[in-house]
Amino acid sequence: MREILRQELVAATPPQLKRICDEIREEIVQTVSVCGGHLASNLGTVELTVALHRVFCFPEDKIVFDVGHQCYTHKLLSGRAARFGTLRREGGLSGFPKRTESPYDCYDTGHAGTAISAALGIAKARDLRGETFSVIALVGDGSFNNGLIFEALNSLHILNTHILIILNDNGMSISPTVGGTHDVLNELKEGSAPPEDVRLFERYGLEYMGVCAGNDIDALLPALEQAKQKLQSTSVLLHVVTKKGQGNAFCENAPTRTHGLSPESAGTEYSAALGEELCALAASDRRIVAVTAAMTDSLGLRPFFDAYPARAFDVGICEEHASVLCAALASAGMKPYYAIYSTFLQRAFDEIVHDVCGQDLPVTFCVDRAGITGADGETHQGVFDLSYLSFIPNLTVGIPKDIGEFRAMVRASAGYRHPFAIRYPRAGREGDDSPVEIGTFELLHKADSNVAVFAAGERCIALAQAVRAAANAENIDFTLINARFLKPLDEAMLASLPQKYIITVEDNVRTGGLGDALDRYYLNQGRVFANFGYREAFIPHGEPRSLARRFGVGEEDVLAAVREFYARG
Amino acid sequence: MREILRQELVAATPPQLKRICDEIREEIVQTVSVCGGHLASNLGTVELTVALHRVFCFPEDKIVFDVGHQCYTHKLLSGRAARFGTLRREGGLSGFPKRTESPYDCYDTGHAGTAISAALGIAKARDLRGETFSVIALVGDGSFNNGLIFEALNSLHILNTHILIILNDNGMSISPTVGGTHDVLNELKEGSAPPEDVRLFERYGLEYMGVCAGNDIDALLPALEQAKQKLQSTSVLLHVVTKKGQGNAFCENAPTRTHGLSPESAGTEYSAALGEELCALAASDRRIVAVTAAMTDSLGLRPFFDAYPARAFDVGICEEHASVLCAALASAGMKPYYAIYSTFLQRAFDEIVHDVCGQDLPVTFCVDRAGITGADGETHQGVFDLSYLSFIPNLTVGIPKDIGEFRAMVRASAGYRHPFAIRYPRAGREGDDSPVEIGTFELLHKADSNVAVFAAGERCIALAQAVRAAANAENIDFTLINARFLKPLDEAMLASLPQKYIITVEDNVRTGGLGDALDRYYLNQGRVFANFGYREAFIPHGEPRSLARRFGVGEEDVLAAVREFYARG
Repeated sequence: MREILRQELVAATPPQLKRICDEIREEIVQTVSVCGGHLASNLGTVELTVALHRVFCFPEDKIVFDVGHQCYTHKLLSGRAARFGTLRREGGLSGFPKRTESPYDCYDTGHAGTAISAALGIAKARDLRGETFSVIALVGDGSFNNGLIFEALNSLHILNTHILIILNDNGMSISPTVGGTHDVLNELKEGSAPPEDVRLFERYGLEYMGVCAGNDIDALLPALEQAKQKLQSTSVLLHVVTKKGQGNAFCENAPTRTHGLSPESAGTEYSAALGEELCALAASDRRIVAVTAAMTDSLGLRPFFDAYPARAFDVGICEEHASVLCAALASAGMKPYYAIYSTFLQRAFDEIVHDVCGQDLPVTFCVDRAGITGADGETHQGVFDLSYLSFIPNLTVGIPKDIGEFRAMVRASAGYRHPFAIRYPRAGREGDDSPVEIGTFELLHKADSNVAVFAAGERCIALAQAVRAAANAENIDFTLINARFLKPLDEAMLASLPQKYIITVEDNVRTGGLGDALDRYYLNQGRVFANFGYREAFIPHGEPRSLARRFGVGEEDVLAAVREFYARG
Repeated sequence: MREILRQELVAATPPQLKRICDEIREEIVQTVSVCGGHLASNLGTVELTVALHRVFCFPEDKIVFDVGHQCYTHKLLSGRAARFGTLRREGGLSGFPKRTESPYDCYDTGHAGTAISAALGIAKARDLRGETFSVIALVGDGSFNNGLIFEALNSLHILNTHILIILNDNGMSISPTVGGTHDVLNELKEGSAPPEDVRLFERYGLEYMGVCAGNDIDALLPALEQAKQKLQSTSVLLHVVTKKGQGNAFCENAPTRTHGLSPESAGTEYSAALGEELCALAASDRRIVAVTAAMTDSLGLRPFFDAYPARAFDVGICEEHASVLCAALASAGMKPYYAIYSTFLQRAFDEIVHDVCGQDLPVTFCVDRAGITGADGETHQGVFDLSYLSFIPNLTVGIPKDIGEFRAMVRASAGYRHPFAIRYPRAGREGDDSPVEIGTFELLHKADSNVAVFAAGERCIALAQAVRAAANAENIDFTLINARFLKPLDEAMLASLPQKYIITVEDNVRTGGLGDALDRYYLNQGRVFANFGYREAFIPHGEPRSLARRFGVGEEDVLAAVREFYARG
């Protein structure tokens, strides 16, 4: 698409602005159909972003996109239109705001609820430095459930600075928005709200400007002009109602399914197996409950929610609350399954430690999208969970090798009386689902050589199998072990393992994961190690296998280690 | 003190109940004066807890104490009076609720904001199991700033169960409560609130019962009876106003200083040095700002808040928001120092990763109360931070050996352009404050032997010095190194180190800390290791040196390793 400069927006008549919106909408649909990405949320915010770029002057003024998945129009209007076809491709434009990509991106986001805190920090720095630009936080109604947003609103008076909060209300998180705040927002939106709801915002130091039609340029321009004026003397909340997927019939009708699109076929999803297993278990075990933080469908929980609505809880984007809720349910005799993406589980780290494991309660964490996830980039890679779970007392951590083994672990967890985290990628293949004993590894291939490879998780076991095929072609062989538990380790197998040369392969950062665990177990035994995990870096967007190779877990590198060890052994 | 059974409370007249309150108050003052502990908060809640124990029937009914530092009266009324003199002593009663201690403690707490989520989980489990007991969450007004509380309130409608929330409003966190929510609560308390504030709670599914004098048995009993009735049909919020330190003139006048008391003399506090250094730096560097989550005094920030009020922010008990705020301040040119206890920093783990380190922003985390802290037990030990910080890209982690070195690190951080965490215990001694180069170790003693000891932090270096004295008496010597950075490691020193036998000593869990970092560095070099850190367990309350020994970091054990290595070397 052509680059559109601000002067064009400023000079344009409303009909011309609408045509620009059409251009942008077409570009987004086309690009996402090729590159994947967040479609519905971006289609919903085209007019709003165009209006913002006309009324405000970026990058002097600053805008923080909460979550950041709705920034495509902003990218198209800030000198990145020519590169937009590289969206989410390795080396191309990120699907999220990135300070390193453009001065127009002032703050990186990816997880929900940070935008108001971030806008307040930027505005406060501005005041202290004697500058005068405007700071805007664009926040979806789903994020308004998140505790961080509340903490930020609570500190408006304390920080004594002015920001513009645009509440982009489309009634959706990835799942439809839920909860008390949502009810309040809904009434405001529908005009049926009692006046106290408006006063509520004012008590926190925000002038509530009322509801604005967010897909209507004619309504947006005067509202934003007015907000800009008010910002001189107060913080402002502009409640903008948009339609997720606006302008595209398919998206408008299926906003959950079109929230995020993947270009490649994803294979069979682990999440579907989770839904099936939980439904089957729940049929005979009344203790089983399922909890999600606004991602029922993407985590495969829809069948459970449909079959057992009284035992299924979507608490909104509240990862911490969901964890404590699970701990308490378990403390009172239930068996909670909390499904969540690896990267979002970081939000609940303290509650895993303090509430779940501190009390040794039988909560099962179903840690989806673990390992490199690819196109969403730094904020969505699930490459830290083995490290941040490795040292928590009372916790068991399983890493199934395929969907069959995942099913077996979910079943094993039902009778298990301690905290249990199972981490798995989005997609893979089915496999043997016979019972798994907790804390045991699986010997996949026994070789005569002095080299043993421990691989964890489907991607790494596939890599190790490929390495073995290549090695076999050179008449090299090694013992291959499915290291399916980070903790407890299979100490019986480890103690009896004859090999001197130990190779580990994991879909996690090198520091603090499986490699460290095995090195620690074998300390002072004279064994020799090669540990493959990602080097210490935030891994950007790209193609998963390519990223894995670039960041330290490549087939060639593992094969080279096998060759070297085999020659020495 | 004598055990007081519920039947005595039920039979007692109001004047008799007041005498029981006096008895309890005297017992708490006496015990805390010997054992240390949370004085002001417990004195403030005597009448409330006595009234709760009369109206409700524990342990059938359940009460969750938010933070849990106000549970002493509950302990005295639940069969633990005879053991109350062992409070916070090793092997004695915990200062916090503990499921393992009594069936009257239904849920363990220690960190702020979990009680409503926990009460909801317990109540929901009750409903699903067809039980009928009452569930109460007792929450201070300070916690009402915390995002977790908001997330829990947001899900009241979703969970569709009934709990009684008692808002214990004493106007204090550890520091006075701040923020928009506090203003709303204050107006309610003073009767000057507009009616919409009451409606606010109702919108979330809570019946607001109004304000009750929380140190007045005569007012409390009917209010709680009424709340118990209402619980049949709705969730209820009872707003109880108490006076922190009630009944003790010294506490009433100094609630911040008497929030928590330590029995032993604490030595010189690192926090005081932090305040001095930040004030000195800020005099010539206008970028410096300080942020705290409701602990200005305990973190030593009072002088900075007094000298630079425009650059000092207490955002309330909002550990996550504080982190994002710091990231954003740094992104816009400021140099934020975020002081926080090690255990509470866990709450901000995702924001450290996602906001601060993900953007490589120059925020300095001043991680106070690191290592074993002692008498507060499991939820307050700072023994995980080296592990959860060890694998985060872009982060530097310093572990000063004394207050002098701490000062040097704080100064070094001012000119440093990356995220920097400095972890230190509460108290120690002054020392040389000459400049420290980031990423360098310090050779404390060079010996001819084949044994090198790496110790990190004041406690472990003192331990290593004591071991050296004992070893010297046996004509054994070793090289002693101050491993003052977990990351980056001093690779130049490590590479040139001649010793084969490596001992590490750290005030952190063994897994994922300094020992693992050095083992990883020296992998496959044929060196032999003994790593001393705490074994994987939640460390209960007790005397720090004794706890350290019991959990794996004892002088005798390190000395034994030195002897063995020296003999082999």
